[in-house]
Amino acid sequence: MNLNDHALPQISTELLLAGYTEARKFTEDLCEPLEIEDYIIQSMPDVSPTRWHLAHTSWFFETFILKPEQPDYQTPNELFSYLFNSYYNAIGDQFPRPKRGLLSRPTVKEVIAYRHHVDAAMKTFISEMEEDVRDRLAALIVLGINHEQQHQELMITDIKHVFSQNPLNPVLAVNAAVAPEPEDCALQWVEFGEQLATIGYPGTGFHFDNEGPPHQVLVRSFEMASRPTTNAEYLNFIEDGGYQRPELWLSDGWAQVCEHEWEAPLYWRRVQDEWREFSTRGLQALNLLEPVTHISYYEADAYATWADSRLPSEQEWELASEMVGLRGQFSEDQLFHPTPCSNGDRGLHQMMGSVWEWTASSYSPYPGFRAPAGAVGEYNGKFMINQNVLRGGSCATPAGHIRKSYRNFFHPHCRWQFSGLRLARDLEE
Amino acid sequence: MNLNDHALPQISTELLLAGYTEARKFTEDLCEPLEIEDYIIQSMPDVSPTRWHLAHTSWFFETFILKPEQPDYQTPNELFSYLFNSYYNAIGDQFPRPKRGLLSRPTVKEVIAYRHHVDAAMKTFISEMEEDVRDRLAALIVLGINHEQQHQELMITDIKHVFSQNPLNPVLAVNAAVAPEPEDCALQWVEFGEQLATIGYPGTGFHFDNEGPPHQVLVRSFEMASRPTTNAEYLNFIEDGGYQRPELWLSDGWAQVCEHEWEAPLYWRRVQDEWREFSTRGLQALNLLEPVTHISYYEADAYATWADSRLPSEQEWELASEMVGLRGQFSEDQLFHPTPCSNGDRGLHQMMGSVWEWTASSYSPYPGFRAPAGAVGEYNGKFMINQNVLRGGSCATPAGHIRKSYRNFFHPHCRWQFSGLRLARDLEE
Amino acid sequence: MNLNDHALPQISTELLLAGYTEARKFTEDLCEPLEIEDYIIQSMPDVSPTRWHLAHTSWFFETFILKPEQPDYQTPNELFSYLFNSYYNAIGDQFPRPKRGLLSRPTVKEVIAYRHHVDAAMKTFISEMEEDVRDRLAALIVLGINHEQQHQELMITDIKHVFSQNPLNPVLAVNAAVAPEPEDCALQWVEFGEQLATIGYPGTGFHFDNEGPPHQVLVRSFEMASRPTTNAEYLNFIEDGGYQRPELWLSDGWAQVCEHEWEAPLYWRRVQDEWREFSTRGLQALNLLEPVTHISYYEADAYATWADSRLPSEQEWELASEMVGLRGQFSEDQLFHPTPCSNGDRGLHQMMGSVWEWTASSYSPYPGFRAPAGAVGEYNGKFMINQNVLRGGSCATPAGHIRKSYRNFFHPHCRWQFSGLRLARDLEE
Amino acid sequence: MNLNDHALPQISTELLLAGYTEARKFTEDLCEPLEIEDYIIQSMPDVSPTRWHLAHTSWFFETFILKPEQPDYQTPNELFSYLFNSYYNAIGDQFPRPKRGLLSRPTVKEVIAYRHHVDAAMKTFISEMEEDVRDRLAALIVLGINHEQQHQELMITDIKHVFSQNPLNPVLAVNAAVAPEPEDCALQWVEFGEQLATIGYPGTGFHFDNEGPPHQVLVRSFEMASRPTTNAEYLNFIEDGGYQRPELWLSDGWAQVCEHEWEAPLYWRRVQDEWREFSTRGLQALNLLEPVTHISYYEADAYATWADSRLPSEQEWELASEMVGLRGQFSEDQLFHPTPCSNGDRGLHQMMGSVWEWTASSYSPYPGFRAPAGAVGEYNGKFMINQNVLRGGSCATPAGHIRKSYRNFFHPHCRWQFSGLRLARDLEE
Repeated sequence: MNLNDHALPQISTELLLAGYTEARKFTEDLCEPLEIEDYIIQSMPDVSPTRWHLAHTSWFFETFILKPEQPDYQTPNELFSYLFNSYYNAIGDQFPRPKRGLLSRPTVKEVIAYRHHVDAAMKTFISEMEEDVRDRLAALIVLGINHEQQHQELMITDIKHVFSQNPLNPVLAVNAAVAPEPEDCALQWVEFGEQLATIGYPGTGFHFDNEGPPHQVLVRSFEMASRPTTNAEYLNFIEDGGYQRPELWLSDGWAQVCEHEWEAPLYWRRVQDEWREFSTRGLQALNLLEPVTHISYYEADAYATWADSRLPSEQEWELASEMVGLRGQFSEDQLFHPTPCSNGDRGLHQMMGSVWEWTASSYSPYPGFRAPAGAVGEYNGKFMINQNVLRGGSCATPAGHIRKSYRNFFHPHCRWQFSGLRLARDLEE
Repeated sequence: MNLNDHALPQISTELLLAGYTEARKFTEDLCEPLEIEDYIIQSMPDVSPTRWHLAHTSWFFETFILKPEQPDYQTPNELFSYLFNSYYNAIGDQFPRPKRGLLSRPTVKEVIAYRHHVDAAMKTFISEMEEDVRDRLAALIVLGINHEQQHQELMITDIKHVFSQNPLNPVLAVNAAVAPEPEDCALQWVEFGEQLATIGYPGTGFHFDNEGPPHQVLVRSFEMASRPTTNAEYLNFIEDGGYQRPELWLSDGWAQVCEHEWEAPLYWRRVQDEWREFSTRGLQALNLLEPVTHISYYEADAYATWADSRLPSEQEWELASEMVGLRGQFSEDQLFHPTPCSNGDRGLHQMMGSVWEWTASSYSPYPGFRAPAGAVGEYNGKFMINQNVLRGGSCATPAGHIRKSYRNFFHPHCRWQFSGLRLARDLEE
Repeated sequence: MNLNDHALPQISTELLLAGYTEARKFTEDLCEPLEIEDYIIQSMPDVSPTRWHLAHTSWFFETFILKPEQPDYQTPNELFSYLFNSYYNAIGDQFPRPKRGLLSRPTVKEVIAYRHHVDAAMKTFISEMEEDVRDRLAALIVLGINHEQQHQELMITDIKHVFSQNPLNPVLAVNAAVAPEPEDCALQWVEFGEQLATIGYPGTGFHFDNEGPPHQVLVRSFEMASRPTTNAEYLNFIEDGGYQRPELWLSDGWAQVCEHEWEAPLYWRRVQDEWREFSTRGLQALNLLEPVTHISYYEADAYATWADSRLPSEQEWELASEMVGLRGQFSEDQLFHPTPCSNGDRGLHQMMGSVWEWTASSYSPYPGFRAPAGAVGEYNGKFMINQNVLRGGSCATPAGHIRKSYRNFFHPHCRWQFSGLRLARDLEE
Repeated sequence: MNLNDHALPQISTELLLAGYTEARKFTEDLCEPLEIEDYIIQSMPDVSPTRWHLAHTSWFFETFILKPEQPDYQTPNELFSYLFNSYYNAIGDQFPRPKRGLLSRPTVKEVIAYRHHVDAAMKTFISEMEEDVRDRLAALIVLGINHEQQHQELMITDIKHVFSQNPLNPVLAVNAAVAPEPEDCALQWVEFGEQLATIGYPGTGFHFDNEGPPHQVLVRSFEMASRPTTNAEYLNFIEDGGYQRPELWLSDGWAQVCEHEWEAPLYWRRVQDEWREFSTRGLQALNLLEPVTHISYYEADAYATWADSRLPSEQEWELASEMVGLRGQFSEDQLFHPTPCSNGDRGLHQMMGSVWEWTASSYSPYPGFRAPAGAVGEYNGKFMINQNVLRGGSCATPAGHIRKSYRNFFHPHCRWQFSGLRLARDLEE
């Protein structure tokens, strides 16, 4: 279900309730392959334990809806407000992020009970709220649902990182990878002429604050690759000495390569002269037709330089996305791994889902952006520095969550998301 | 049961089997209060997850007995040899110690199954071994049992450290703390004259290699405190500015105080101007009569300096221990917390159990010591630098494990063991 | 002298020679107040010892002009190529940057001799070069001169940082600070209407590659402060709890504040409840009328948020700069400290010189930018990530070095440059 | 001159004055080969800049003699008390040790002036002091002279470390290395029977507090190598895989080998398959006959294990030293590099001077040791943890400074001193 298509605040109570219920359930469905032990581990500061995600998404509804709106709401434990606050300084102190993996209690069972406690209260609240309350709160509840969906994606990328630490190579994916037979998907270039484009979410449905306000931007003519870069193409870069040639890299990127001895994407592993890839299906032979993923911005940029191209700006990407629909490979298939391009027609493919595409654009406020007042204003605005924008969603993104104007953002060294790239080039005039 | 009283290698098969069974069972008994989530966490590099202890102690028997002696023995997983090797370079590579907390698999259930798999094989092996095999291996099996007991103590101190990270203050102890009513135990001094003392394990029973060979040492006259230093006494030190006065501290100790902002023993916490102590019973009011514990060597030494005394050498401690029996407060009571001294008679009290007592002696080889050949030789000898000897066992030590000649050792900054101190002084001649 | 006004490559030999000579001499003039000991120290990895600057700027001419163009040129020491290469991977390995302060040799005297050796060769080369050579190399020589000027500024900010470590508070400035009497310079706002602006260096004279190509940008209406923010204004921010209120800060900025316990600009020091500022004149009373300086991007942004404003984009800044001339306070006055605004007229003041002004723009390539081939291409392009653009020059910038299209760039946490801010605001439409 | 032979406090004024004058002059003589730039650099936290040594040794006399005893003494700068205090908490705060290399002022010239200022005052004070003052202060003045001598040695090892950072390989030694022709010095073993030995300085002359009180120790029979281990012997260890075999190493030592990728002594460098050694004469071919030096305790211990031997205890060393005189290779020859053994007679050679010999003994207080009251009590006692004792002096020790009872001490990982080893073995009884 995609709540985001519906105009806010007039969204109906039934739709809100269904959206809430579905999102909350999908979070728990995602945990189905996990053992209790898996919920606890934080494999690096960026990663949160699954149990923390389960609790934090409940804390969100408790903190922003139940506590302020339901005077008789009782939390199971006053300390949860401290333990499961992520970064909202306006709410109060936070248990230190890098220590989330040091907590064994509350247990998974207790956290699930906490979820259900919140769910019961939320469902009652949504069902019973007056129309004016609904009009006032619908956007906030839908924000909570979208927040839940964001953590669904993080749960997948985080547990994948946890599993990757383990020499036993645990498996996450429920479904076998029955990808459609790929067609011949040779890379083609799609041209766009110079234009004044309107960038930013233009409608009345849900969207994050960072997607607006809509505004005009002068975009020069460019061309864009028909599909994301594949493992085969990226392997050419590696075999051409990509990770040994500083001239291809941004200076900060080269420092990362040297310090961390990068020589391939995060989950590639050379086993007896053969490349394999750790995926949600365990350690597999590298599939050359799949989009390359788990690369940093630095690697995406170096690859583009090597390929005599560049990364698109987010404005170019958004403008180009007008050509395509919202369909793609998302988390509902429970593969959690990008599949090869299966469409060789002219035009843009795999824009939505599959892999997040790094853009050349730093994550900055759009002209006229003002963060909302209060704690919710900490959602996006305070991160607008040192990060780059990614577009399009991935195989770990819930289908109903993505928009063409959606701006994801990560620091340029980050690799544990399903991040890939699509090339762009200037058009000679 | 104390296997150590029995002469090796003539120990009987029945006794070996009973000792093995009892030790293995007690390890699992200790886990009874734990949730699955608790088994996974490594709260600092020195700490190992409970699940790791359960597996490593099984690995020890598998590696040193079953694999070399039982050609048809099958391990459940060849990777366990890598995952659960602690530090035996002669056996092979080791999964990095600081990353033990990043593994969620094998699950606790699988590790318990591993234990039982090893137990079944070991029990069969012990029951069926020929006399000459028994004579050859009895010492090694008893070493494995003692190794198991050492990890029983570590399991307690490690999980206590894990729990101490959690604002929910989880409780470990099964038993309520029904300590006997303490008598008036004013500190007294017990005198010892200069003598040529024989130091080191003198008998034919089990002992660690580092306890020998026995040798003569000239010990000058000294006097020793009748009981360990109490919380009340240590609090006087704190209130007299102990943690603010560099002249009381060793230089490396003062650097620790400044860097880590130490102002009290590890688990003391000031809550609204009152001292509390995190213990295996949760966060409690500080009991002034209990022996002070969870202090580093640096703190023990600074306290002794403040008290115009010094720490005893390990030779003094061992010589003095001739006055006392082996009884004391050990882990079998499942309190895992030292209780007040309950004996005001003249003489030495609480020498065994309660708290490990830091000695002034660096952990060095006794004259004539040679580490055994092979992997077992890595057990003790390679740690003989940068550590200090502690004596007497603690409330987390199994009763049958300790000896008067027993040399425990930790780096001087370590505080997560049940480490305390007993004062000594030179006797004016 | 401002070589940059002259069209390249047709610049005359005489002008090139004069520009070279003047720039090289001014570098050495700047060292006049220094003791030999001062030349050696690297007070943090970002800082280079003065001696290194003296050598590196000579290395630049040696490497890019003399070695390739003068086959019989002899370097005094082949190792200099390694020791004094900053970051040009295409040239070869570099002595590790954080270790520049570990070298006592070559001595200052030897480095000065190296400078003069290069100067003699360069002057001969310039004087004698054929017209076609001049046409081919004029831009590269002028680049070397501009490179020299950039290091002149760094020499000042670096030695200031070195001196700031010293409790003796050494003095750098040659001249007494005879600032003109400040007029009443109340902050005013200057309005700009929406327009398609041409951004980037438009002419035929020298400019860095990152200033081009010129291109059109749609700039929305905005208003800009008439002068940089002053110490008095910034002090209001501090006294209003600016450094204690996370809601004013970018998330990465707040992390810096907490980790480094920032509570004021880099060189402010509270002495007995009074603010003083360490400057090139030693430790001085804080002059409230001066522009605030030595602040990070994070501080500039937090101040702007607190002031209900924002930082200008670099496009806004460049567009606004059309109103002003190139005059300002530069390093030739040898004060090396910004002076109060002395002009209360309507319009923009202190745009050029005084303090570098942080802009909201991340340092990114302009549309169509391609870095030149070869080592010179490493000059600017490879740094286009994780940094923000600063505009306008400072009191440590040589007058002939600055342009309105000049893009300086530093990481947002950096504070050791003369960095300040000027406020901007959206115009309500 | 060796003041230490003279009974304190009855030492004469003339001798005190001569000793003071000679020691102070030799410090400055040692600086003769240095450029101003060399005085400033701190190449690691353990190293102090030469300029700091020059100032600190003057600070010592100023602080402990002139300020308390000469009411009208004027210091050139009150801040020197803070800048040049090493670690005497009883005196006051100290400028942070790791930042000593960040200070360019006071200049070398100013520090030399400070030295001469102190010298003038000290010489007047010594010349004019009454007999009772002399009796009271002679020991303290001689301590200051010995302190000066200790820093003479540190100046050499510190500047050697500074120079070793520099690819230009600067030269320190004034004298050419005209070593005597080595005889055939095959390693022999010298036997010692079990005995009650008296350990510690027994006389009435100057000695450090840590050398006493003298006390009896029961020493078992042992044998000791006739000379230190040579480069040739150590090379055998390396070529036999010494640095790749964990079974030879203490656990903490092996961690060092792995972390710092040690593969030879500190200053050995493999240049095109040949070993060279950076020495005070620059980079030289490795002389196989010289004693191995610049090794850590860990390396000394691993070598001894490999050689089926062990390191001597300090008691064994001191007992054995009764066989030899005080002659040896010391810093007065200004070679600052150990020369080959040139005496093949039976007996012990090169016990004094040449290289400090690591002993197996941790640095601990002798029985009955009490540190003196006040700041001087911080001289030795507070370092009695985590270090091992070295004996015998080195080629960088002033001849008049050493005693057989002299206990030098360093952390076991330290390598920048002239530290080597001499083997010992148990004697079979």
